[in-house]
Parts: sequence; structure tokens; C-alpha cells
Amino acid sequence: MMSQFARLDFSELLAQYPVGDGFTKWLATLTRGRLDELREERFRRLMDHAWTVPFYAERWRAAGVSPGDIACLDDIGALPTFDKSDIVEFYERSSFRTAIASGSATHPALILHTTSGTTGTPQPLVFSPLTREISNSFVARLYLWHGLRADDTVQSLYGHGMVNGGHHIREAVLHFTDSLFLSAGSGAETRSTRQIDLMRQFSTTVLVGFCDYIKHLAEVAREQGFEPGVDLPIRLIFGHLGTEGHGPVETAWPGATAVDWYGVGDTGMIAAEGPERRGLHIWEDAHHVEVLDSSTGQACTVNEPGDVVCTSLYKLDAFPMIRFNTHDVSHFLPDDATLQAYPLRRIAGFLGRSDNMVKLRGINFYPHAVASLITNIGDLNGEYVCIVERHGDRDELHVVVEANGAADPSIVSQQLERSIREQFSVSVNVEIVSPRATAHLTELGQRQKPIRLVDRRPSPS
Amino acid sequence: MMSQFARLDFSELLAQYPVGDGFTKWLATLTRGRLDELREERFRRLMDHAWTVPFYAERWRAAGVSPGDIACLDDIGALPTFDKSDIVEFYERSSFRTAIASGSATHPALILHTTSGTTGTPQPLVFSPLTREISNSFVARLYLWHGLRADDTVQSLYGHGMVNGGHHIREAVLHFTDSLFLSAGSGAETRSTRQIDLMRQFSTTVLVGFCDYIKHLAEVAREQGFEPGVDLPIRLIFGHLGTEGHGPVETAWPGATAVDWYGVGDTGMIAAEGPERRGLHIWEDAHHVEVLDSSTGQACTVNEPGDVVCTSLYKLDAFPMIRFNTHDVSHFLPDDATLQAYPLRRIAGFLGRSDNMVKLRGINFYPHAVASLITNIGDLNGEYVCIVERHGDRDELHVVVEANGAADPSIVSQQLERSIREQFSVSVNVEIVSPRATAHLTELGQRQKPIRLVDRRPSPS
Repeated sequence: MMSQFARLDFSELLAQYPVGDGFTKWLATLTRGRLDELREERFRRLMDHAWTVPFYAERWRAAGVSPGDIACLDDIGALPTFDKSDIVEFYERSSFRTAIASGSATHPALILHTTSGTTGTPQPLVFSPLTREISNSFVARLYLWHGLRADDTVQSLYGHGMVNGGHHIREAVLHFTDSLFLSAGSGAETRSTRQIDLMRQFSTTVLVGFCDYIKHLAEVAREQGFEPGVDLPIRLIFGHLGTEGHGPVETAWPGATAVDWYGVGDTGMIAAEGPERRGLHIWEDAHHVEVLDSSTGQACTVNEPGDVVCTSLYKLDAFPMIRFNTHDVSHFLPDDATLQAYPLRRIAGFLGRSDNMVKLRGINFYPHAVASLITNIGDLNGEYVCIVERHGDRDELHVVVEANGAADPSIVSQQLERSIREQFSVSVNVEIVSPRATAHLTELGQRQKPIRLVDRRPSPS
Repeated sequence: MMSQFARLDFSELLAQYPVGDGFTKWLATLTRGRLDELREERFRRLMDHAWTVPFYAERWRAAGVSPGDIACLDDIGALPTFDKSDIVEFYERSSFRTAIASGSATHPALILHTTSGTTGTPQPLVFSPLTREISNSFVARLYLWHGLRADDTVQSLYGHGMVNGGHHIREAVLHFTDSLFLSAGSGAETRSTRQIDLMRQFSTTVLVGFCDYIKHLAEVAREQGFEPGVDLPIRLIFGHLGTEGHGPVETAWPGATAVDWYGVGDTGMIAAEGPERRGLHIWEDAHHVEVLDSSTGQACTVNEPGDVVCTSLYKLDAFPMIRFNTHDVSHFLPDDATLQAYPLRRIAGFLGRSDNMVKLRGINFYPHAVASLITNIGDLNGEYVCIVERHGDRDELHVVVEANGAADPSIVSQQLERSIREQFSVSVNVEIVSPRATAHLTELGQRQKPIRLVDRRPSPS
């Protein structure tokens, strides 16, 4: 009897979730009507499956929902949302083995990861071979859409171990492309000077990872006497650009095209930039995305930021994802007549975390928004951290930003305070510090995702 | 066009290189004659391929060998052996891209790793999707032969990043078994106390990794108040036992069966213990193994230790392995009438490294041999390091061994000096030290393979 994995039919998988030429052909003839039909069909199958999974059956019954109540995606609002803490609580309450065995006779969980636990207890992430490979295909879909070739060398800077990232990207490239792949890993696995050696020895042309580290590697290369873009001809960067946009990482690596994408461990890649790089197209054949107000839970309108809540239409396994609240903040983008070739809805990408949101005099402020503002001011190097403090009964935000060189700190700080006041209708205090002076707070270089908010308010007790 | 990987035919692969039930059935009806036929057929195909690979064609022509000269495995001695340093030198001399593209139109290298570089420059290890999966199957073959089940949780303690080990074991378990798998990684990736948390949370039943670390984890568990074998019911351990045998790791983890295997990154798993655990059966359908005297290069007889030289019959890709000298020391085991069910030749397993061999008064001594001796003496905890020094024109070996508790050091050291003299006909000086006193020399816990020989002789200049 062959293993579950060995029995997978990759040709059938790729017919259902196309990549490469298959994807561009599919997209070229796709209509909104055909896409909606496919989505509804997948959603019905998902719902039938999810009622057999105790985690959902219990929650939904408790919320007064019956199997017949949800006929189509328009009805999805009747189902409760949940988040990471509910998953952690479920696994703590149930025996892990029992939990993953239930409702998964056809696609049991065989692959186990955990989240890093930076925002609390590490959360188990379980995958069956089939749904794992489907989610791997989403990464390859993006890379190939942007022209990844068989003669490219892809160097991955995502970490390994129990963390999912590095393994996921490796599987995506190895199983669905013909490029040469290096699992270099984070700086903790392969020190930064050695990363540069690898790029040189194996002619790396594509870097994938977190943009903060990719930018840092350009500095390391220069310190070693190599010119990014000349001695190290990187042509593509796939990362998570967030609010700072393409500029900073493309300036660090001249000649490279940077591509933004968004996803979480539980769902896989949700949305990504197309070749036109104007917003992130949702892989709508695989996910249904909602943006909900983080206070009221009501659906946000176009351009209005809120929590990204994801339903993964493809995940028919031991742990489906239905109305999973990522607590990542984004907003829908309006339809764009010039993008009619792509009938996929678009989101803005990662704008911050709602659990990092600071409410200042009634205004919601996301620390990550600072990145987009300082990118447009010369004399700053892009590093920053926000510190929130309680003064009397008022919360005050102190924004600490690193200078690049010899600019007049007082002029730059006034300029930035004005930008924030104009854009977000909120007054904050900006301080300009010397290069690397925020590193002890952001833990840049030690963490894959630097800390951008330090909360010094007294804890409620 | 599907990727190379997606086009793999796992059912055909498993027909050629069986695992699980397929393997035990194949073995049950296997005769030496049929095996030799298969081996010669694979060897002929390998040689035809290797003449198209510049690395071999150049070396063999320089040695005066022509394509017609090697008709069968008996002729293999006419081909020069090579080792890691030749591979490093080849890649330094050639453009890497050119080197891996040559002679590999059907199976180009897409997966790149490097050795850790602990014994010199990191060496590239390249794999094509097909040969990679074949080598993954060897690991699954072993695990399933020893009864790995779908309801087991396998926790892997092999490191990731550019190093091959962790990725290789992960792929083996995920692609060829239905067990739940945790890529915990080395202690650097998942700290030891967290490893114990994972075992408890996910009901780990099988540990795979380097035995020194697996033994260390039993201590960590006890320090945390958990009893190995009771609170942590590990039932199988797959590691690299070397000369110390099954005893120490099975004592550390009561109730577990430990299984030894041997292989290197360039070849994959070469040999492994069967259920009877009396020597390591060579996967002879996949490898041709020679044991050669490390000074003369002549074939060793049964029981005579020498360098393991491996020819991988399955590796028809960008970098075949033909007469690769591992510099690992082992010896062939004699035929055993009670093991007639297995027509596979056996080796003793890893006995040391010939580049760690110390010549004392004409006698070859391998520091790893100490492990087998101290396992049989109570009051020692199994940790040791050998220090070689030059006294005048004589090399002297100083063996430093850790005590377990309150034994009389002078009695134990005399006893051990006698054992070494009797078994190896060589006089050494033994010193008993307190627990953990060798750790600063062996770097136990920081390295996957602890250092067992410190060479303090003046370097030749």
C-alpha cells in the first residue's frame, strides 16, 4: 500500500489549481460568473466536510446554526468567526491525536508545524498531504506568474524547524517549478556573510523571504565588498512588503523587481501582486476573503481597513479554515477598469495587526503605517518603532525613527509629525535617532518580523 | 508543462526500490543470483551515464580507462576512487551552473545542499528530483522494516538550513509513510526543553537523529520532571549508534528499541540494521560497497577495518557517485547461517574516520573505538575525548573519560588502559574526569557530531 503522498495525482491537482502556463491560460478566459460558480461549488463541499469536524460542528451548533442554514457564500456571515486563540484552546481541551483524527478519514493530518509563538502560545498547524500540496501550488503560481525560470537559482531566507515558512516555500519551489533551490534559511541557520557566499557560489537570481532581512543582506554584501545588482545580479524578490512598498527593497537591490504577497500559516498564500503590481489579487478559486471592522465585526466597505477574515475553499482536511480571523489589517481595493483582464478581487496587502492597533483620541492608528510615510522622506533609513504610553488618562504615541545620515533632526521630525497629522488626523511625537538605535527594541536581525509597537501602558489589573 | 517533480511516477519508483510490505516481500524471495543480476544491470546503466559526466570522463581518461574496460562490478577496481576534496576542487574549477548542467539533460540538479564544512570547505550536494526521491525511499524502507506505523508520531532532531539531514528525513517520512511528522530540528532550532514539550503535546513515539543528542534529551526530560519511557513513551529510535551499540541510548529511553544505520549525504542511506539487529545490511540493490585499506587502497578482508568506498547504483543524475571514498571506517561481517533470510552483505557500521586515525607504534587506532569499551564499564557516563600529542619522536594518546558517579578513578582508569591494550595491542594513558568535564573539547550539545579526537601534535611545516 503506497503512502497518501505517493498516491497524490499532481496532474489532477494542477487541473483544479493551475500554475504556470495553466494559470495564465485559465485567467485569460476566466469570467466572474464562472469563478463564482466554482467558488460556490467548492464552498458547498467545504461546508459538507466541516460539519463532520468537531471544532466547527460544536461551535456552529452553539451559535444556533444548522447544516441547512448556509446555502451559499452570501450566507457565510451567519457563521461565527474564530482566531488563533480558539485553535490553541481546542487543542488544549482535546487530546491532540483525537482532535486531528476526527472528520478526516480521507485526509488525515500528517504534517505538523507550530506558529512561532511570538504573539502567545505556539499554535499547531496541521496539514494533510493533499491540502499541503494545494497550498504549495499557490506559491509556485505566484513565482511563475512573475516569470520564474528553470535557469533561476532561488535562495530562500525563511526559517525551518517547527516553523512552517521555510518548509512550505521549499516544497512549493521543488514540487511545482524546475528552478534550482537553496534552503539557506534565516540568519540564525546561515549567517549573513555565508548567505552572500552562497549567492556568489551558486549564482542566485531570486531571493525569497522577509523584506527586512533581504534589505539587511544588501548592506552585508556591500560591507563584504560586493555590489548588489552588479556582483550579485538578483532579478526577482518575493517578500512581504507591507506599507513601505516596493521602493526600499528595490533600492537596496538595484535591478530586482520586488513582489508583495500575503498569507498566513493556517491558510497558505491568500493574495499576491500580479505583473502590474497594483494591489494584491486574491486567489479566489482557493479563498473567500472578508474584511471586518475589528470592533464591530461588520463588513468594511472598499478602502476601509479592517481584519482580514479568510475561508479556505480548498482545505478539506482535518482542520478546515472557515471564517478565520487573522487579525491582520487590510482593505479591499476598488474595481479598476484597466485591470479587467483579471476578474479577481484585490486587497491592499498587510497594513498592520489589529491587536497592535492603538486608539488615540478615537482614531485607530496602526504602527506599520509609519513605514509608508518614512519611505518618502530622504535622510531616513526606514527603521522605526512606536512606543505607546499612558499620560494621565490619555494615550500618547512616541514614534522613534532612524536617520540615514546628516539631516537636521528637528526639520525631519516636524515634517513627519505633520504627515501623520494630515494623513491620520492624530498628533504624535516623532524623535529622530541615529542608525541602528531602534534595533534593541525591534530586535531586527534576531526576529523574522521586527517588533514595531512597544506598549508601555500600565496593564489592566 | 508540469515540473520534473510533479511528473515523477512514485508507483514505478517503488516497484524499482521497494519499501514497506513491498520490501519485505521482495526480500523474502530474493536470491543472491537475482540480486547480482539486478546490480549488474544497474551498474551498466550507471557507467553509460557516467561517461557523459565531465567529472568522471576527465578523471577516468586521465587514469587510462576507456569506456569498454569496465564490463561488470568485478572490474570496478580499475576506476580511481575520489573523495570530498575532489568534489570541492571540481566545483571551484568549473562554473557551478556548467558543472551541474553537464550530462544531466534528463535529470538536472534542482536541489542543492552543502555539507556542514566541519572537516573543511562546505561541499555542494546536488540532487535531481528522481534520485532524491529514490534516496528518500531508503530511509522509509528502514523505518517501515522496523514497524513504523500510521499512528506513530515521528520527531526529527536533524538540523535544517543548507544542511541536508533534516530535509532528507522529512521528505522520507512525508513522502513514503503515513506517520505524523514533526520537523523539530536540532537543539539550535528547537531548544531542548521545548523538544520535551513537543513530545508531550503531540504524543511522540519515534525519535530520529544523532544519538548523542537523543541521550541528552532523556536527561533534559528528567530535569523537567518527566520519566523517559513512562511520561514519554518512545518506542523506536533511529540513529547512528556507532561503536557504543544499542545499550546507552536504550538505557536512557527505557522501552525504546534503537536501530543503527549508516550513510553519507552524497549517497543517502547505505546500510542499516534489520529486525535482528546483528550488523548493518547494505541496500545492495542501490549501492555497491567496498572496504579499502586506508593506506594501500587494497580491498580489506572480512572483519578487517578500512575506508568505506561507495558506488551508488541508483544515482543517474548530474552527479553520480562511483567509488566515492567516505573516509568512514567499517568492515564487512562474515556470512551468518542464521541470517540466510537476508541475502544482503553486511557491514559493522560506523567505527570512526580514517582521517581521525592515529598510528601508535605501527598500530591503527580509531578514537571512536573507545565508545564500545566504556559502554561495558559501570561508573562511566559514556562521554570521552582522545588527545594525541607528540613526545619526542613518539605519538602518545591520552584518553579522557567522564565518570558517572563515585567510582574509584584509579581502578577504572587501570581497567580501561588494560582493555585497550588487550583489544588493540597499544598502550594509552587514561584519565577519569568528572561528568561534563570533556564538554568544552567535544562541544557536545553545540555540534550534531561531537569531537572525539583533539590533535595537539605540531603541524608539519
